[in-house]
Amino acid sequence: MSAGVVESIHNFDMSGFIGVHAGAGDHSDETSLAYKKICKDACRKGAVVLKSGGSALDAITASIAALEDCPLTNAGFGSNLTWTGTVECDACVMDGKSLSWGGVGAVTGVRNPIIMAKSLCIRQMNKQLSMGRIPPCLLVGEGARSWAEEAGIPTTDPKSLISEKARRIHLHYKKKLAKEQEKSINMLSPLDTVGAVCIDSKGHVAAASSSGGIILKHSGRTGQAAMFGCGCWAQDGSGENSSVATSTSGCGEYLIRTMLAREAALDLRTTSCGSTCLHGTMVNKFLGSPFLAGISDPFGGVIALKCDREGVGEFLWSHTTKSFCIGYMNCNEKSPKSSMSKLPNGIEPGTKAVVEGVGFILNPQPDHQNEMQSSTT
Amino acid sequence: MSAGVVESIHNFDMSGFIGVHAGAGDHSDETSLAYKKICKDACRKGAVVLKSGGSALDAITASIAALEDCPLTNAGFGSNLTWTGTVECDACVMDGKSLSWGGVGAVTGVRNPIIMAKSLCIRQMNKQLSMGRIPPCLLVGEGARSWAEEAGIPTTDPKSLISEKARRIHLHYKKKLAKEQEKSINMLSPLDTVGAVCIDSKGHVAAASSSGGIILKHSGRTGQAAMFGCGCWAQDGSGENSSVATSTSGCGEYLIRTMLAREAALDLRTTSCGSTCLHGTMVNKFLGSPFLAGISDPFGGVIALKCDREGVGEFLWSHTTKSFCIGYMNCNEKSPKSSMSKLPNGIEPGTKAVVEGVGFILNPQPDHQNEMQSSTT
Repeated sequence: MSAGVVESIHNFDMSGFIGVHAGAGDHSDETSLAYKKICKDACRKGAVVLKSGGSALDAITASIAALEDCPLTNAGFGSNLTWTGTVECDACVMDGKSLSWGGVGAVTGVRNPIIMAKSLCIRQMNKQLSMGRIPPCLLVGEGARSWAEEAGIPTTDPKSLISEKARRIHLHYKKKLAKEQEKSINMLSPLDTVGAVCIDSKGHVAAASSSGGIILKHSGRTGQAAMFGCGCWAQDGSGENSSVATSTSGCGEYLIRTMLAREAALDLRTTSCGSTCLHGTMVNKFLGSPFLAGISDPFGGVIALKCDREGVGEFLWSHTTKSFCIGYMNCNEKSPKSSMSKLPNGIEPGTKAVVEGVGFILNPQPDHQNEMQSSTT
Repeated sequence: MSAGVVESIHNFDMSGFIGVHAGAGDHSDETSLAYKKICKDACRKGAVVLKSGGSALDAITASIAALEDCPLTNAGFGSNLTWTGTVECDACVMDGKSLSWGGVGAVTGVRNPIIMAKSLCIRQMNKQLSMGRIPPCLLVGEGARSWAEEAGIPTTDPKSLISEKARRIHLHYKKKLAKEQEKSINMLSPLDTVGAVCIDSKGHVAAASSSGGIILKHSGRTGQAAMFGCGCWAQDGSGENSSVATSTSGCGEYLIRTMLAREAALDLRTTSCGSTCLHGTMVNKFLGSPFLAGISDPFGGVIALKCDREGVGEFLWSHTTKSFCIGYMNCNEKSPKSSMSKLPNGIEPGTKAVVEGVGFILNPQPDHQNEMQSSTT
């Protein structure tokens, strides 16, 4: 799916930028190092694809697959268990050039749900099957797994995706719930879903999201990573509009109600200052959204990439949770960077949004990359 | 869920308006009468609820359940069969007061998927379960059916939802596809999904959508009726903004990519002339949408309700398909009306959108109800 030169927005050989997140939540200092490391590893995986001329869609798939394979994240292997003790995954990917989107919901026994989402996304580009049939954009449940088998996407015994840690945590919370103690505990932190945004050397963007969902969820529950406009958004630039890509993390139902991925991306398309714009989106369309009225814990996070026709861009992250682990890599640079972004001390999670980011330039002038100031409100 | 007087936008006892559709598609003259009749029957079911002081959410559930029970429609009993010969249904409902949404996707063995969607929608209003858990807004597949069983929602042997007609059609198309003949045939007409929009005596709106999906779909494929913002939208008025409710029909993947239900509703919120506005939405955000670029058959339809604080409203319908069957009833009137709207002769389906509608007034002055002019472009 990598586009020809004619269709490029710009063309900087071997360039590209990838940003990832490993979940908005509440990370301890001990786990922070591990999360930062997996974000960097995931960025490297994507950058290898970009440097070899691969598309943004290929690169984020590689990055997300690495995050899914990691037992620490709540995606793919090691995902949170449902009430009945199974792993059921959601994932989606959007291609900014074709505006295609593919997703899977509550799928079991697929080792890398993102690979299946990508396959559905690509088939969407072909528009039509014989006899007027249309390729599906979202497949769920058992039917999703059988589709994967037919399409040659690696499947596995569903039980093999259960990690020892996930089983332990599942038992722990089930016992707690049985006792009906500690009703005020928020067991959803950290949420640990993963996501990525990317721009390739042709200037095309892509975004993805993958999640095992909330622990103890009912079987069949699907979250933002299986909902169009909610888990991720990617749209190539056109005219004066920048290319944009976003991926969200947090309480799935809240990210769905606010369509945070799409809203953030559409706002960023037309702005000149990404960080101010993203902060406005988080304040007005998430924390202050009428769709979350009365909700006491609007926990969410988003990573966003924005890039103009000259290859000058910003990678931004924002969250209302205590912490949010992100990583990024410019292919011009030797190595990825990562950060455990935190709400400032004394700020109650779910009340304010912090926004941070870095600027980047796609052509090989690495000294132009500079840290942007962070802002909290 | 019916609101108290204090929370009312207005209060016209025993009043309300309900509009339904039984699918955008290509209806023969012989079947038109039957479709028009079931639309009227569904309106009566909803109006009974409204006249007894029920909420818009209660009323559309009654109307959609009646449409689901009818073997003619592609929803509930008699739905299109999947490739493997099963019935898998999608349905969703949105409440304009709380902005809650509930949906089910690819669910089997639930006689009335709309009842399950409503139950999920209402639980969403309660915001939170113990220990920080959040009620699911979308449930899919096997897990959805087990949830229904636990929640006391009527389930049945999945095979009992297969009608003789559906089995016949399924065999017919499977044979055709096996022969790989007639590749150009569009077997998706009529699409026969159902939907409803409603405003109750308190001025609250609701919208719903229910569908068995495309015939020969892969098991697990979910369409617009399980996707937030795509199958239906409902939002009570606030400030100068009208109350709006929409429900869509057509090719699910196209309705998802364009988020037609949400786009049409948001456009209608702020306009004074509903029909011109809806036509603009169909032309710019559906037929001309960059999300449908290169697609040769953008088939879709939408019903929309818009009402101001004084109880003066419009019920509108638009479609790019050959025909679209709708029905509506003002509780002030004795009986429902229905219409098989058609594209004018000579217009190729998928190239233009026709818009028609009626005005209504919620307080008991039935002589104010007047046919609006229809426009085609």
